[in-house]
Amino acid sequence: MNAYLIAIGDELLSGRTLDTNSNFIAKQLDRIGISTIKISTIFDDLETIKNELLQATISKADFIFTTGGLGPTKDDKTKQTIADFLSDVLIFNQDCLDHVSKLYTERGRILNELTRNQALVPSRSLAIVNRYGTAPILWSKAKNNKILINLPGVPYETRAMMEETIIPKIKSEFKLPFILRKSLTVINYPESELAIALTDWENELPKNISLSYLPAGSRIELRLTIKGEDKDLMEKLVSKEIEKLPEILGDRLISKEEINIIDLISDFLKKEQLSIALAESITGGSLSQCFTSVPGCSSYYKGGIIAYNTKIKENILNVPRALIDEHTVVSKEVAEAMAINTAKIFQTDIAISTTGVAGPNTDEYNNPVGLAYVGLFYKGEVFSEKFVYSNLTREEMILRISNKAIEFLYNKIIMNK
Amino acid sequence: MNAYLIAIGDELLSGRTLDTNSNFIAKQLDRIGISTIKISTIFDDLETIKNELLQATISKADFIFTTGGLGPTKDDKTKQTIADFLSDVLIFNQDCLDHVSKLYTERGRILNELTRNQALVPSRSLAIVNRYGTAPILWSKAKNNKILINLPGVPYETRAMMEETIIPKIKSEFKLPFILRKSLTVINYPESELAIALTDWENELPKNISLSYLPAGSRIELRLTIKGEDKDLMEKLVSKEIEKLPEILGDRLISKEEINIIDLISDFLKKEQLSIALAESITGGSLSQCFTSVPGCSSYYKGGIIAYNTKIKENILNVPRALIDEHTVVSKEVAEAMAINTAKIFQTDIAISTTGVAGPNTDEYNNPVGLAYVGLFYKGEVFSEKFVYSNLTREEMILRISNKAIEFLYNKIIMNK
Repeated sequence: MNAYLIAIGDELLSGRTLDTNSNFIAKQLDRIGISTIKISTIFDDLETIKNELLQATISKADFIFTTGGLGPTKDDKTKQTIADFLSDVLIFNQDCLDHVSKLYTERGRILNELTRNQALVPSRSLAIVNRYGTAPILWSKAKNNKILINLPGVPYETRAMMEETIIPKIKSEFKLPFILRKSLTVINYPESELAIALTDWENELPKNISLSYLPAGSRIELRLTIKGEDKDLMEKLVSKEIEKLPEILGDRLISKEEINIIDLISDFLKKEQLSIALAESITGGSLSQCFTSVPGCSSYYKGGIIAYNTKIKENILNVPRALIDEHTVVSKEVAEAMAINTAKIFQTDIAISTTGVAGPNTDEYNNPVGLAYVGLFYKGEVFSEKFVYSNLTREEMILRISNKAIEFLYNKIIMNK
Repeated sequence: MNAYLIAIGDELLSGRTLDTNSNFIAKQLDRIGISTIKISTIFDDLETIKNELLQATISKADFIFTTGGLGPTKDDKTKQTIADFLSDVLIFNQDCLDHVSKLYTERGRILNELTRNQALVPSRSLAIVNRYGTAPILWSKAKNNKILINLPGVPYETRAMMEETIIPKIKSEFKLPFILRKSLTVINYPESELAIALTDWENELPKNISLSYLPAGSRIELRLTIKGEDKDLMEKLVSKEIEKLPEILGDRLISKEEINIIDLISDFLKKEQLSIALAESITGGSLSQCFTSVPGCSSYYKGGIIAYNTKIKENILNVPRALIDEHTVVSKEVAEAMAINTAKIFQTDIAISTTGVAGPNTDEYNNPVGLAYVGLFYKGEVFSEKFVYSNLTREEMILRISNKAIEFLYNKIIMNK
């Protein structure tokens, strides 16, 4: 089964707002075997919405999802358009009205007419109360046997309602095929060289297995996809192909699972009962965020110091002034001292440090924008690595150094190299 | 003038990769007065790409942008499709070949056939060397006087090449209209109540000015848009309407500029020569990241301590054990102690602290998931605020608390309330 997603909102086309809803919906659908065949981002305008809905109706999609355009103010025109499209009229839905009234009473606010209108729904549609907001979710039968599902534009409302209500409803009402995806992570292999190394293997892949190369930083994810009914048979087919890979790729094939490197590190730290702390300068909290994004991280992640200022490196991280004067704050020596002292302060087995110049200007020592060091204290030893990035934006550079620090940690503690 | 964006990639439709390129391009185009009328995300498949290009050719767009599908491996089919679409053939471009060879020599790698093929371009297209990667940017004249621009899928290559090459080229070759957007930020006003308060004002807006309500957390951005040739006249028209707003909205209208609250804080701290430090528990680095996202922040932002562990709150932030035992780590008292001690440790004028339970489980004191406190030390005084969020994902909650902490700071130091 297929889905066609329509993201509605002028702010999505002016670039003011990044559409994250469509990505989330596509991912959720993918997991239950529904392929998204198109995502259209369009203006919140009556004619435009109607035309796009017509396009979707004549496509191969079984489900049409819209997001956005369900708010209370004048610039939201979707609901009337949906009613027109379904040759239906809008009526008040008592459940939705009760929900909105209750929400307002709880918040100590008075229900006004615009908010009351949130309970207006097409008469033949199923209106699902949105327990995260005021706009209901609409589920309707449209022409050509399509199911039309209208979701709000607010990301957390859409995400929560998809997970809790829409996905279970689809699963219970439709017989779904099965999409099997297996991912393998390859490191230290440029994409084109990897493709050459895999030429023979790729040419011999069964026709119903498709292969994608998905670069992610300095890693490449190889993804095999197969769709069908017989899960066991599909598993066998794909496994047979995957088993051939270690011989071709050697230890550059790091994982047979689609897994984040941070999750591998997390599992390792838990298993080995190791603790970790951070000292961030250039990455300014971004590295810590990678660690705290993993639920349950508090069993090994103790915390960190963001030393954005040289004085803080001196006074809190106890980096000797003389060392800074001799080598500057952006140096191998300072990165290593930061890592050693952080492990001491937090009493952890491991500590990572970052220092560098993100720009826009060179630092007080005239170190160039793009220079950075990552330090690592592990099992009584200290390591460091130098990185030089030119031509990156400030934001991109901070992200890159955070990723490099995580890869450095992975290589040292798990790969032992 | 209008643009039609086509994002190509199976990984964009499976939900594996979030398309950030289209948003970036739309924003860049918007700044020079080009409106994006549609964004289509499609499969990397010959027929699909050809059909979408045809759709774009008969649309109102003057420019057609594609992103993705230009890499060296087999799953990238765009270039041949583009040549077919332009009724052209692919030939080797010497400049692109030289560039790729140079890049490979620098990196100590051997140029293989797949990478050589990156220098294949349609014979009549302008091939622009991509100094951030191997795939060239193509600029071609297509049917119906459309300009077709093909960009790579790698976000930082596309971003950099748009800014450095494509936008300047469009500006120099086309006479562009002017889009004027003025944004106003409103706080402490629910969207529907704001809409009612503005009904009369909105009804009297000149027809060529359009208005959008853009909720952003607990703030709402009101955006007025006008498009035309005479910049001065447009400025006057819009200013006249904006001047009526303070009387209607009072001090809930916080800004007449489209500005981030963090930028307002940044300007204030610089002007008043105040310094700030952070103590983060629940936000785990995310608050620090908000601060360090502002270029030049190092003049007031000294750093922070991420105290993810109770022991760290005790040993490094010097929160007394007795206080924790009496009130638990997620309490007004601990949040305030964290803020006070952070200001002491970092010797700053201001310190913010966060503590809370992000989940998935309740904490060791049985505090519920969703409970959080923000503490603030400012001018020798300490303040705090309690937040309770149910029904939020872990990620969403961390983001929300970071935003609330920034708003709390803004209200206290700039609004004095």
